[in-house]
Amino acid sequence: MRDAYHEELDGLADKLVEMTRLVRSAMARATTALLDADLRLAEEVISADEQINKIETEIEETVFDLMARQQPVAGDLRTLVSTLRTSGDLERMGDLAVHLAKTARRRHPEGAIPPELQSTVLEMGQIAERMVAKAGNVIATQDVALGLELDADDDTMDRLHRKLFDVLLSPKWKHGVEPAVDISLAGRYFERFADHAVHVAENVVYLVTGRHPEEINN
Amino acid sequence: MRDAYHEELDGLADKLVEMTRLVRSAMARATTALLDADLRLAEEVISADEQINKIETEIEETVFDLMARQQPVAGDLRTLVSTLRTSGDLERMGDLAVHLAKTARRRHPEGAIPPELQSTVLEMGQIAERMVAKAGNVIATQDVALGLELDADDDTMDRLHRKLFDVLLSPKWKHGVEPAVDISLAGRYFERFADHAVHVAENVVYLVTGRHPEEINN
Repeated sequence: MRDAYHEELDGLADKLVEMTRLVRSAMARATTALLDADLRLAEEVISADEQINKIETEIEETVFDLMARQQPVAGDLRTLVSTLRTSGDLERMGDLAVHLAKTARRRHPEGAIPPELQSTVLEMGQIAERMVAKAGNVIATQDVALGLELDADDDTMDRLHRKLFDVLLSPKWKHGVEPAVDISLAGRYFERFADHAVHVAENVVYLVTGRHPEEINN
Repeated sequence: MRDAYHEELDGLADKLVEMTRLVRSAMARATTALLDADLRLAEEVISADEQINKIETEIEETVFDLMARQQPVAGDLRTLVSTLRTSGDLERMGDLAVHLAKTARRRHPEGAIPPELQSTVLEMGQIAERMVAKAGNVIATQDVALGLELDADDDTMDRLHRKLFDVLLSPKWKHGVEPAVDISLAGRYFERFADHAVHVAENVVYLVTGRHPEEINN
């Protein structure tokens, strides 16, 4: 009985890793859709989000089912609660990729990102993608050192986010209000995506070490 | 033992209600700070957020302590998980009020909201405030009918959010890029605040009825 139970816990971790894979793919496509004004890629991101939501629901059902059928000990309860939080973060990251894709779709056939911001947005997308890939790796391996790396990635994201605003708000900006609004919101989506990836890693670090990353990094 | 335990559960609900009160106050001040370019109010919101975060941490510690010391039955576990989720939503709502206050502070002594958008932003702030007040009431009373009202409030918020963008993106907009960027982000903060208020109410409705609000409203 106890063994089947721990197999179910492992199954939950596999599902979380699967979510990170789907979210990573959504972020890669959404970034390319934004940069290339690619409507097909944008639509793919939007329709693929259902699968991410479906896994979140399955995880939630399994967690509550395990809580009801078993009497999990405190440590396992913490793992179950952490699993719910992580799936919530990943579901939200999927939504943020959808928001980016919808921005690309709304501006199509025009591009949402003018030439002087293409490299910054590309870099934000790449870091976002890398962060969720690392988060998946942290879930799978419980590698605390890798989990702590996410903080530095998040600092890079924040720096790029500020750079985006510097360009939007400079006197040289000549694309007017609508692209500026779209890009400032897109910047916000990338930044929140990174925050959620940090949360995912933090949750694992906390489960493994019993300490929050800021206590370890300092 | 069992009685002390249920007293602790009641204490958690009281703390959530206290959080809604603090978040409501933060939203009221942040909206006024935005509309009046009031730096003092903005600073109050920013410094008061610490108290909201502190209560969230206390709630989390109590929940994990209860999970460790007691062997909660499935129904109580669901309540405990729901409490964690709700405190997470409320903590995030406090952050969103802080983002609004920081927008007011950054633009001070100028106002962030031009005359033609003052009434829309006022209405968004009022609905946000009402939604978190109702959410507090729903937590305190477990009133399912009131909980279901939040969906209609959220629709109103979405309508106002669209109106905001219509004004920003109209050819008549003459305030340039920076205010447009600030206001589009502020609109996003109000909208997310409302989404979190809906989640809080949904969580209570689900705990009481075992059903999600959309299953009841349809």
